[in-house]
Amino acid sequence: MLIDHYNKVRQHSLLLAEPLSDEDCGAQSMPDASPVKWHLAHTTWFFETFILESMEAAFAPFHPAFRVLFNSYYNGVGEKHPRAQRGLLTRPGMAQVRAYRANVDARIACLLAGELARGERERLTMLLALGLEHEQQHQELLLTDVKHLLAQSALFPAYLDTAPALAQEHAQPTAWLAFDGGLAQIGHAGDGFCFDNELPRHPQYVAPFELASALVTNGEYLAFIEAGGYRTAHLWLAEGWDWVRSQQLECPLYWQRDDAGHWQEFTLFGLRPLDLQAPATHLSLFEADAYAHWAGARLPTEAEWELAAQGVAVEVGQLHPAAAGAPGTGLRQMFGHCWQWTSSSYAPYPGYRTAPGALGEYNGKFMLNQYVLRGSSCATPAGHARASYRNFFPAGARWQFSGIRLARQVE
Amino acid sequence: MLIDHYNKVRQHSLLLAEPLSDEDCGAQSMPDASPVKWHLAHTTWFFETFILESMEAAFAPFHPAFRVLFNSYYNGVGEKHPRAQRGLLTRPGMAQVRAYRANVDARIACLLAGELARGERERLTMLLALGLEHEQQHQELLLTDVKHLLAQSALFPAYLDTAPALAQEHAQPTAWLAFDGGLAQIGHAGDGFCFDNELPRHPQYVAPFELASALVTNGEYLAFIEAGGYRTAHLWLAEGWDWVRSQQLECPLYWQRDDAGHWQEFTLFGLRPLDLQAPATHLSLFEADAYAHWAGARLPTEAEWELAAQGVAVEVGQLHPAAAGAPGTGLRQMFGHCWQWTSSSYAPYPGYRTAPGALGEYNGKFMLNQYVLRGSSCATPAGHARASYRNFFPAGARWQFSGIRLARQVE
Amino acid sequence: MLIDHYNKVRQHSLLLAEPLSDEDCGAQSMPDASPVKWHLAHTTWFFETFILESMEAAFAPFHPAFRVLFNSYYNGVGEKHPRAQRGLLTRPGMAQVRAYRANVDARIACLLAGELARGERERLTMLLALGLEHEQQHQELLLTDVKHLLAQSALFPAYLDTAPALAQEHAQPTAWLAFDGGLAQIGHAGDGFCFDNELPRHPQYVAPFELASALVTNGEYLAFIEAGGYRTAHLWLAEGWDWVRSQQLECPLYWQRDDAGHWQEFTLFGLRPLDLQAPATHLSLFEADAYAHWAGARLPTEAEWELAAQGVAVEVGQLHPAAAGAPGTGLRQMFGHCWQWTSSSYAPYPGYRTAPGALGEYNGKFMLNQYVLRGSSCATPAGHARASYRNFFPAGARWQFSGIRLARQVE
Amino acid sequence: MLIDHYNKVRQHSLLLAEPLSDEDCGAQSMPDASPVKWHLAHTTWFFETFILESMEAAFAPFHPAFRVLFNSYYNGVGEKHPRAQRGLLTRPGMAQVRAYRANVDARIACLLAGELARGERERLTMLLALGLEHEQQHQELLLTDVKHLLAQSALFPAYLDTAPALAQEHAQPTAWLAFDGGLAQIGHAGDGFCFDNELPRHPQYVAPFELASALVTNGEYLAFIEAGGYRTAHLWLAEGWDWVRSQQLECPLYWQRDDAGHWQEFTLFGLRPLDLQAPATHLSLFEADAYAHWAGARLPTEAEWELAAQGVAVEVGQLHPAAAGAPGTGLRQMFGHCWQWTSSSYAPYPGYRTAPGALGEYNGKFMLNQYVLRGSSCATPAGHARASYRNFFPAGARWQFSGIRLARQVE
Repeated sequence: MLIDHYNKVRQHSLLLAEPLSDEDCGAQSMPDASPVKWHLAHTTWFFETFILESMEAAFAPFHPAFRVLFNSYYNGVGEKHPRAQRGLLTRPGMAQVRAYRANVDARIACLLAGELARGERERLTMLLALGLEHEQQHQELLLTDVKHLLAQSALFPAYLDTAPALAQEHAQPTAWLAFDGGLAQIGHAGDGFCFDNELPRHPQYVAPFELASALVTNGEYLAFIEAGGYRTAHLWLAEGWDWVRSQQLECPLYWQRDDAGHWQEFTLFGLRPLDLQAPATHLSLFEADAYAHWAGARLPTEAEWELAAQGVAVEVGQLHPAAAGAPGTGLRQMFGHCWQWTSSSYAPYPGYRTAPGALGEYNGKFMLNQYVLRGSSCATPAGHARASYRNFFPAGARWQFSGIRLARQVE
Repeated sequence: MLIDHYNKVRQHSLLLAEPLSDEDCGAQSMPDASPVKWHLAHTTWFFETFILESMEAAFAPFHPAFRVLFNSYYNGVGEKHPRAQRGLLTRPGMAQVRAYRANVDARIACLLAGELARGERERLTMLLALGLEHEQQHQELLLTDVKHLLAQSALFPAYLDTAPALAQEHAQPTAWLAFDGGLAQIGHAGDGFCFDNELPRHPQYVAPFELASALVTNGEYLAFIEAGGYRTAHLWLAEGWDWVRSQQLECPLYWQRDDAGHWQEFTLFGLRPLDLQAPATHLSLFEADAYAHWAGARLPTEAEWELAAQGVAVEVGQLHPAAAGAPGTGLRQMFGHCWQWTSSSYAPYPGYRTAPGALGEYNGKFMLNQYVLRGSSCATPAGHARASYRNFFPAGARWQFSGIRLARQVE
Repeated sequence: MLIDHYNKVRQHSLLLAEPLSDEDCGAQSMPDASPVKWHLAHTTWFFETFILESMEAAFAPFHPAFRVLFNSYYNGVGEKHPRAQRGLLTRPGMAQVRAYRANVDARIACLLAGELARGERERLTMLLALGLEHEQQHQELLLTDVKHLLAQSALFPAYLDTAPALAQEHAQPTAWLAFDGGLAQIGHAGDGFCFDNELPRHPQYVAPFELASALVTNGEYLAFIEAGGYRTAHLWLAEGWDWVRSQQLECPLYWQRDDAGHWQEFTLFGLRPLDLQAPATHLSLFEADAYAHWAGARLPTEAEWELAAQGVAVEVGQLHPAAAGAPGTGLRQMFGHCWQWTSSSYAPYPGYRTAPGALGEYNGKFMLNQYVLRGSSCATPAGHARASYRNFFPAGARWQFSGIRLARQVE
Repeated sequence: MLIDHYNKVRQHSLLLAEPLSDEDCGAQSMPDASPVKWHLAHTTWFFETFILESMEAAFAPFHPAFRVLFNSYYNGVGEKHPRAQRGLLTRPGMAQVRAYRANVDARIACLLAGELARGERERLTMLLALGLEHEQQHQELLLTDVKHLLAQSALFPAYLDTAPALAQEHAQPTAWLAFDGGLAQIGHAGDGFCFDNELPRHPQYVAPFELASALVTNGEYLAFIEAGGYRTAHLWLAEGWDWVRSQQLECPLYWQRDDAGHWQEFTLFGLRPLDLQAPATHLSLFEADAYAHWAGARLPTEAEWELAAQGVAVEVGQLHPAAAGAPGTGLRQMFGHCWQWTSSSYAPYPGYRTAPGALGEYNGKFMLNQYVLRGSSCATPAGHARASYRNFFPAGARWQFSGIRLARQVE
């Protein structure tokens, strides 16, 4: 039943906020991140604005100011609260936002249970699916944003106290797997949900290539650091080199050394010794690209990645950078560990069309100066990943669970 | 009893936080302002660091990280949490900060009740007095900071629901009061508490001058706006004109027009119609100086203000811009309404000496590019004001309760 | 003879500086642009550093400081003078830079005339070709940079006094030309010179598409402005909309209205009435993309553009935005008018390899957050354009001669 | 004869530009500095705008655009060319600016030789005096600005090739000289020229104080550096400490170490070994104040300085930091070496009045966040210094010839 799926996804958002105080839920650690409370309200706003407003018989907003306060970036809906000041919205408080969620959920249930013309019901089903996928995207952002916030405190508090058991992936060496290439079909196929940016499915010529069987590990990345990677200009893109130098970077976002010089990593489970076997994560595209140069390889294109992923089973992440990999041989860690930077800029597929109205702003207007990441991470909700999924961030973004899978040309 | 005074001042801080949620207490609306929670913790840190640390027999900090987290600007104490990121400290939460306050209060009580050598007790008394005056300064900042925070929300929430009754000051016209000047004694006299910046008392020659009997009102300031004051370059200091233009300012900080064009002012009691009889407040020195130019007058020097204030009774503000004025004739509104900008830059008095150690940073290091305000405001705690008190802020500061009293040369 | 070609190209640079005073040649109007003098010195530095330094028998630099002063971005060569401060290099003066050019030219001539091992001569020939193409790139930049500089003066001085005769292109309507697409070969073919970024030639699948027969004209772009294009959010990429709003843009870079409201355009021939028939130019990718949206079309990909251009004769620009177009029917203005923005981000072709050493920095490290422009402009030197040529700039760049050719999907 | 004085001052400006190329004269090394050409034009604009425009019978501007191009900061005159872009004005060129000067000089001569009503002649005499003092101020700025520009070049070119002979001041030890203080008369007295900010002369009470007999030397300042002065927070004003840290400063503006670690100083005569006997210069108020703290002293107030200087003979600087000092005993180096920071903020004297109209902007509008310097420097033109002269700059300014004279309280 659609309503069951709806309730399950919606409740999962609240579940994610459970370990946090109201204070935790209100703060915003940087303009790119949003407060947990804002995620909870904005995802609700999405249902109210794009479904209830047009389909509810006697629509009245839960609160007239929320239309502006919780609009993220939809110019077609009207004004927006300034993005960098979301952390200043101490009013409405968490209690009122919870009430907002309950109110909208009840109205959605009511709408679903009621009579609807057939075209209307189809539209409702489609919009609910979109709204729930949208909420799942925010569930992952909620986690990455709260991790970034907690990392600002000198107390290094844990989001969760008990880490999942560490699934030992014993020394399975990374191999180069060869792919033939050819005229591939790229983009989403089938009847399941996908975002507009995964369409239309279209032919793309891919030259033969090789892909690493696993993600680059913390241990491998540490070797890059120790070899002077952050101090060697010729490994970096020009903009990446400026970025490294202006910010005086020397390691991934959440790495630090303790007083004895041992590497530690801040995680959702607090500060922990660096796990050398786990995939390296919280890397920018700049770092991923420099590492690939240093390793004599390159990043894959998104078409290469998708071609390789077609048919691979989707794993579910476990909020842990070392979540269990696929037990078999061959291609591992495509899903559920960390997003994998590609060298592909985020661009429309040939024949791409946006939806009419404000929903057309969902994806299309961001197709510039962003780069595609593929796969999914330990923070991606179950059921949200697929081979054709296109995640995207600017090249300098590091607060996502983003890592490296190498590719190389066939000699 | 000193302990009673201590407890009363300390409890007043908590009282001020009562109308606020934990979320309200955690947010920081701009780098110049601090979260309420931070004020509550920092004032406690002051007692722990400057008293307990040196005088407690077996000193152990309440929490080792707090020494850094709640240090404001004392380089002599060591590292500081970055000022602009005080709003990101969701941990420790409000509950832990309340526990911190209770803990330090109990230890101070214990110290006071115990045995102490005579020099030690004198030092303790002096440091407690300083710590309590320090806390009272933060009580006023707490209110100005929370006002600024609440003003960021489109909901314009009230800090207090019920405003004090409006004390009508019926049309008592402002007069010019003449002062003879001469070789005045400036600076604090007597045995009562004062800050180091009010000393030493010293002679200063003051030429004859006239002072306005009352503060500039909202109605008078509105006339300046309507006469094009914000668009007339020659009224402004060069830096003030750049400031007005770059920020595109047209009115005081919390003024706005409603849809019908009527002026409203955001107050601690929410959005209210502009009270034309009340003193104009939340003005920068730039605005105060431009208004004075327009009015054919000037701002007083701090020596002129202090000379006039010597002997004037101190009124207590009532958290209201129109708090009751002195009933008599003559000089009114010197205290309890809003701080009054002077034309004097904040500088050491001749022979000024700072305390040894980190406490020497209390005042002296800020004596540059700041301007003195005199009097007190509706938000100043009872017992905190006096004629020799020197408040100071940069010329562009507007979030304090700062207003205008005019002066002019005797022709 | 290679030496004749060398001398011709080198003399052309000096010819371009002829209409300018020494003062004109020294100034830098923005960090993206360079002084004319710097262009003249840097192109010379290229020959001295990459040829003479390794091939001259007893190499001694013309001036030891020049290695740093005139290095543009080659980290492999060592330190660089800060880019934004090139306009502060009043020493060396123009006379010394001319002497530097003459000195290096003489040494190159000497090297060419002397004995060389066969491998060495091949390498010399290759490096000279690269150096001369590099100089031609700077000849175009010299013109766009000097145009930007002259535009800063309220006197709007002309670079050249007499404009070329205006080649009237009478009302030839723009048509949609259809292309079949398919598995195209993209990249440079044949033995002629090309940059490393045009290689390797490789297959790429291109869906059927249509291309506009001509460039968008000033008159057409004016209609976009008058229809409110610069004030309509949904036409713009998200980053483009931020750009337009933060800079309060309302028209192309060099357009302005005279007192009577008539549009004028600043050109290398001074301020002139806007030529409605001429191609619109000095547009950012943001503007080009918004215009295409508004016109119900899109920008071409670089593969589409190259496929269409294969076999088209290259026209030579005449330093004039309305230089004569191809007289025939069909595809017009592919070369010699203005560079044409594509929707393709600047990325390596499959199998792309950089040269070893510092010369490997020529192109590869810029392949991020830049977009490809194709064709050539009125300022491109004769002999420098070809169908596979990849020019690139960030999306906000406007001071190049950059314009719009529309494409659209086949329905 | 007034005309002779006029011609002499005007010719001196051209003389100062003689050692420079046209390129040197056009560049602007930072927004605070101006190109030499701009100084030459702006001083001419002053005569044309404030004298010729109102007094010439048939006034026609030399060039209509110059009224805007060469207006510095007079809002009352109208629009201004943006200050930070004065270096982009390659047109008009130096030749045209020389022609502008000659033209205005001829018209001024004509005006002076002609018939004038008595009131008019008085006004002309007053305005010419102001214009010439204004030009002398710019003669000093021209030198400090060109020094700053030449310091940007890795070639460290000398403005003048031959330094004046070094007047050895053999080890005359600095003494503390006592002053009684009392009710002093401060401000300009007598009939000679002074700026409006030196008036009115007024009584000011000055407590007894001591003043150092000489300026702090490079050797003394070096001891402060070697004692860790730039790394010791408690010596600095809060804003000064932020300034030192954000700019990572370790020494005065033009000091640097050679490869062997020896200190050198860039001067108008090129790079030279640091002269330990010469007065330390190019110091900010922040550095001067920190040095004074370290030395157990303080900076003088401007009243103290003026009181001490009354009656001291004015020495003329010789474009050299070690220009000959007064041979006698007692107070030395009050004039002709470097400007001396005081602790006094730049504020109006009691009863200060500005001139009507745009000339009223000359001084008054800068009386905020600037600090007074007294004396004169090696770059001050002969005849321009006096005891009541008030120079002023923001606390962070370092490109002026600014140094330190210590004061202290009488114990």
